[in-house]
Amino acid sequence: MEYSFEKEGLRSIPDTFYPVEKLKDFTHMGTVKTYAKGSTIVFPDDENYMLIYVLSGRISVSVLADEEKEKLIYYTGENGIICARMYHMDNDNIYIVATQKSKVCYFSEEQLSTIFSQDNAIIFEIIKSFISKVRFCTKQNLELTYYNPTNRILRLLHEVYLSNGILVGDSYEICINLSLKFISQITGAHYVTVCRVLGYLKKQKIVEKIKNKIIIYDPDKLQELSNDNFFYRNIY
Amino acid sequence: MEYSFEKEGLRSIPDTFYPVEKLKDFTHMGTVKTYAKGSTIVFPDDENYMLIYVLSGRISVSVLADEEKEKLIYYTGENGIICARMYHMDNDNIYIVATQKSKVCYFSEEQLSTIFSQDNAIIFEIIKSFISKVRFCTKQNLELTYYNPTNRILRLLHEVYLSNGILVGDSYEICINLSLKFISQITGAHYVTVCRVLGYLKKQKIVEKIKNKIIIYDPDKLQELSNDNFFYRNIY
Repeated sequence: MEYSFEKEGLRSIPDTFYPVEKLKDFTHMGTVKTYAKGSTIVFPDDENYMLIYVLSGRISVSVLADEEKEKLIYYTGENGIICARMYHMDNDNIYIVATQKSKVCYFSEEQLSTIFSQDNAIIFEIIKSFISKVRFCTKQNLELTYYNPTNRILRLLHEVYLSNGILVGDSYEICINLSLKFISQITGAHYVTVCRVLGYLKKQKIVEKIKNKIIIYDPDKLQELSNDNFFYRNIY
Repeated sequence: MEYSFEKEGLRSIPDTFYPVEKLKDFTHMGTVKTYAKGSTIVFPDDENYMLIYVLSGRISVSVLADEEKEKLIYYTGENGIICARMYHMDNDNIYIVATQKSKVCYFSEEQLSTIFSQDNAIIFEIIKSFISKVRFCTKQNLELTYYNPTNRILRLLHEVYLSNGILVGDSYEICINLSLKFISQITGAHYVTVCRVLGYLKKQKIVEKIKNKIIIYDPDKLQELSNDNFFYRNIY
């Protein structure tokens, strides 16, 4: 699907916010590095303060809190930018990992300054990328404040259906690799809750998740359940 | 207290992220407007896409969701910037209000482009402001995911004590105008829960909130309670 900034307000998956394609023309000015799948790009105590631009692969940006609590901020693929570690911040606890084999380009503030003076428009691309991120985090906050974990899972599935569902026969299909772990990370619901809710939806023939695809058999029922605050108690 | 970007990682109150002082030199290029206390600066369906720079007063930025749910994103005072409405985004539902008499300056993308070409460093100030916002929203997410409402209130009070507590006699004082409503907005806890927790803390002589001030009588007990996941059930 083609990327559109205007649709950022409807985003349900934190993956590759506003891709800054124009930075590709300046990678010769930065430092390109390749990372194997699973390798750490930034540890919480690293002191390498740069903007990270993703050339290929897939990267996760997380924050670690006390008592080993971890929170995914977002994933990013090609043309995504990571600014979380551009500057030193006390207690930032940012943790960046290559979840697939990845190639990235590091830019220092000085290099970016030169790039911006050559192409002023890139600045506004970076601002759009940030607006998208703040927007999504705020939306997650709202979901966490007002909805219970079961509702959040149902609402996510319904949003994914609304934005990407394609009618195939009698049902809707969404080609998306949305793992149970990723659903848990997005919604803040426990992995076990995600398993239970998806098990229930499959049994009731409402939604089924198969490899790289989600099939929505009954979108109306899905919406109805996602609006029902009592569902959480009824399901177990 | 002097502002320091390095301390953004420890921020507990969403008020005036990274103040961009340098923009003050360019207000003659933008459009200055004054708003009375309580007046709306941006309605969700406004089509005036600009960066808003705060010259004086206090402004709240919120998002409205379905069923009249509202979520405060942040407040900002002098030198704060608001980029939430710089570009059109479907379904953005941003709502900006002057909570005190305020003076702001609007800058269009074109005007900013001219400003950036005159002073490249402002770009990095704006990036820092965004990094602070994403950082804080992520922290809120983490709190909402891992802690119950009572814990979140206690944790907030303990953080405020750690960052701003001043020893006065046998107790610590924090000069801060943190209303019950604001505590509720930050933590996502219900207003009634905030009242109950503060009532309990006062009765137990642990914390007392008076006008424009919070007094911490027993920081150790406060920390102990904020780490105790069973407290929520015990208090009522």
